[in-house]
Amino acid sequence: MNILVLNCGSSSIKFQLLEITDEAKVLAKGMADRVGMDNSELEYKVPNQTELVFRDKIENHTEGIDRILSVLVDGKTAVLSELSEIDAVGHRVAHGGEQFSESVMVNEEVADGIRNCIDLAPLHNPANLAGIEAMERLLPGVPQVAVFDTAFHQSMDKEAFLYSIPYEYYQKYGIRRYGFHGTSHKFVAEKACNILGKDFKSMKIITCHLGNGASIAAIKNGKSIDTSMGFTPNEGLMMGTRSGSIDPGILPFIAKKEGKELSDLNNLINKESGVKGISQHSSDMRDLAEAAECGNKQAELALRMYAQRVKKYIGAYTASLNGLDLLIFTGGIGENNHFVRNLCLSDLEYLGIDFDKEKNKTIRGKDSMLSTSESKVRVMAITTNEELVIARETYHITQKLKYQEEVSH
Amino acid sequence: MNILVLNCGSSSIKFQLLEITDEAKVLAKGMADRVGMDNSELEYKVPNQTELVFRDKIENHTEGIDRILSVLVDGKTAVLSELSEIDAVGHRVAHGGEQFSESVMVNEEVADGIRNCIDLAPLHNPANLAGIEAMERLLPGVPQVAVFDTAFHQSMDKEAFLYSIPYEYYQKYGIRRYGFHGTSHKFVAEKACNILGKDFKSMKIITCHLGNGASIAAIKNGKSIDTSMGFTPNEGLMMGTRSGSIDPGILPFIAKKEGKELSDLNNLINKESGVKGISQHSSDMRDLAEAAECGNKQAELALRMYAQRVKKYIGAYTASLNGLDLLIFTGGIGENNHFVRNLCLSDLEYLGIDFDKEKNKTIRGKDSMLSTSESKVRVMAITTNEELVIARETYHITQKLKYQEEVSH
Repeated sequence: MNILVLNCGSSSIKFQLLEITDEAKVLAKGMADRVGMDNSELEYKVPNQTELVFRDKIENHTEGIDRILSVLVDGKTAVLSELSEIDAVGHRVAHGGEQFSESVMVNEEVADGIRNCIDLAPLHNPANLAGIEAMERLLPGVPQVAVFDTAFHQSMDKEAFLYSIPYEYYQKYGIRRYGFHGTSHKFVAEKACNILGKDFKSMKIITCHLGNGASIAAIKNGKSIDTSMGFTPNEGLMMGTRSGSIDPGILPFIAKKEGKELSDLNNLINKESGVKGISQHSSDMRDLAEAAECGNKQAELALRMYAQRVKKYIGAYTASLNGLDLLIFTGGIGENNHFVRNLCLSDLEYLGIDFDKEKNKTIRGKDSMLSTSESKVRVMAITTNEELVIARETYHITQKLKYQEEVSH
Repeated sequence: MNILVLNCGSSSIKFQLLEITDEAKVLAKGMADRVGMDNSELEYKVPNQTELVFRDKIENHTEGIDRILSVLVDGKTAVLSELSEIDAVGHRVAHGGEQFSESVMVNEEVADGIRNCIDLAPLHNPANLAGIEAMERLLPGVPQVAVFDTAFHQSMDKEAFLYSIPYEYYQKYGIRRYGFHGTSHKFVAEKACNILGKDFKSMKIITCHLGNGASIAAIKNGKSIDTSMGFTPNEGLMMGTRSGSIDPGILPFIAKKEGKELSDLNNLINKESGVKGISQHSSDMRDLAEAAECGNKQAELALRMYAQRVKKYIGAYTASLNGLDLLIFTGGIGENNHFVRNLCLSDLEYLGIDFDKEKNKTIRGKDSMLSTSESKVRVMAITTNEELVIARETYHITQKLKYQEEVSH
């Protein structure tokens, strides 16, 4: 079964075409970038074969998807003979609010549900909808599945998801913790359990998804019970350019001091903060690790602050879980940056964590055990693959529906 | 030695007159309330003897302090023959910024330092200064000591006290974590160590000061290494009417939705949030515990949220400390509310915490051990007494100075 996975951002469309059987094979992938701008481009890659960049203006998401479909079937770049070989489309949808706690087949009602969450994800949900609508026009009748970044965290209970502001703001505007990176947290936790031969549904797990955005989740018996991102993807950990949690009094203070508008402040906490804001050097942890090793004090401070916040969440979620069986690092930083992992894992002996410092240094981008055999908590680096999760979810939902249709006939 | 302790708020003046020798004895105490308003009043209490309320307009802090001094020496209410029997005055000062990491004798430079922190505590520091100036006029030549609510936390390192916003905001405006309730955190930790016969300087301690305002501190080897209140006394825990930590994106979202200025929102997060905002019933934990027991779901939710946040901090700070020897509950709620303590302490077996649920129910307002002899972590309820700390600090500083003067003569 061939599944096209689409991840539409406000001005980009990432895609992967996968062939899913028991295994998964990437047939082609790429990205339409700067959609709607003059310098738009389309990157296209067939693994071990083609790598191309087309530079033509792409007016909107429909046109972008049209180009992507063309490149998949046309001439030299083709990996399919015709578009009818695409059996289903899986969409990454940023925000499913409280309506969606799992992946669903797209229909009128689902599209309305995604539309209802635009307020909560004003940049992303409209792009996701544009992708769905474009697909309906370009591949009519092909089943489409929506996979929500928030869905896995819908299992949190009220104590974890409510903010202690007046309850009416939850009722009126849906202000609550939603959490993000749900597909990734679930995927790496299940994968690690498979590797260990453990039952995902009877484990206490903390997953640290550390990428340009970063979040941590506490998973108990297969369910997310808490996560660090909240109403927005800003809360929680320090990130590349995002502040993470700060004193609620800080923004009103700065607004008053500098006579700033709210929109300026959104920019401040989302684009100018995090390790970039502290290091005054870079938002990229690789640059910072390098600079720190060359004696850059601000870079070192940024890294130490970053790791300290991760550690505090590990401690907090271990309390929420009343113990910990498995700690997972994933995402660009979690999978590759041994410097950060080392800082995050040091001085946690009280939890019975014992990790192999030398081995940690050698681990980059592969599923690995970091803890020693003495460690009470298993610590692993696990590679995430959100496109694969989306393709698999799409596969299972379409298969299930097909089966149900066959049975009912 | 007779020491007058003053705690000047924006519209109130709390006072205690203590006789300090090896022991401490309260001679009189009370409060001038609603200073500057038409319905001002002066409460006055001589333990086991007099309890009076005077209702006359008190124009300002100088007049309020003048009345307090009068009542201490005049006629029937007198506990002193004359004002010269007051040997020193100790002031609780809200904010000492980065300048003050311990209590100090007040002089010109210290007053300037307190003035420099007005930006950081715009309601409290001006009142504290007014108190100091009034005393200089009314009791000229009597030594005055400033005891700062922030001082104990000045031992935090940069990783703990910086926010991950652009570094220039720390340099330009001093935006950083300061922490509050410092005298209380230090006092109860030292007191508990004395009771246990342990060395305060070699212990890992978490102190939970749970009152109308609430904060937690992590204390390692006698020094505060982290605390939950930050740049303002709003951050961290859920409180009576304060939100504690929330997603930084929430205030800009509400401001935009409701056409509010950010500065309008200070009221929302400080006066309308916390357990009051969630329960829609009361900001008082006693009311909530009662309502919850009668089946009020919102009240129960508020209590559970409150306790869950305390637990997460206990977990986080145990990670920062890499272990935990002693956990202390203090403040009006921590000392008296067994319902809240029970929720905070449940399901923490992973830390080796074992507490006596039945005994916990009986503990109100006295120093007590809550943990069993099996518990790896000692858990105690310890009564705090900020006035006593201020009096003792004042005593020690004036004694030290006297000794130095004698030696140098």
